[in-house]
Amino acid sequence: AGNAEAGKAKATTCAACHGGDGNSIAAMYPNLAGQHAQYLESAIKAYRDGQRSGGMSAMMAPMVANLSDQDAADLAAYFSQQKLKQ
Amino acid sequence: AGNAEAGKAKATTCAACHGGDGNSIAAMYPNLAGQHAQYLESAIKAYRDGQRSGGMSAMMAPMVANLSDQDAADLAAYFSQQKLKQ
Repeated sequence: AGNAEAGKAKATTCAACHGGDGNSIAAMYPNLAGQHAQYLESAIKAYRDGQRSGGMSAMMAPMVANLSDQDAADLAAYFSQQKLKQ
Repeated sequence: AGNAEAGKAKATTCAACHGGDGNSIAAMYPNLAGQHAQYLESAIKAYRDGQRSGGMSAMMAPMVANLSDQDAADLAAYFSQQKLKQ
């Protein structure tokens, strides 16, 4: 299972577009705050493993290329626990 | 631009997994409520246009296969305006 504190420490790269708390900086980037951890983890792995093309995948693939399964779980735990601003 | 009222009328298929108000019924399915419309629209088109594999894409692709660009925009408008429960 993911560790949110560990995920926070690994989230600096993500923050540039998705925001430090998962509220993204622009509408082209999805919010991560409040999203299910299970979904976030699967999305990170899909980008890492080349299962997504189109959209922002050309940007996302290198961002997540070196993440381990544990990294993905940690990041998913962290962002899922943040509050979506609405 | 998308029309949220029109999107609501087109969202019955989506509701089975993502919930009628975009709060999904299980953690494997992403919440759509409160997500940026621009992102949701691009995600629908990516599934429709075969740019996503892995994950739930085998389920999503046929669900969105017959959606027009306007349908995608309408659905995105509707779900982006729903409130994420958190």
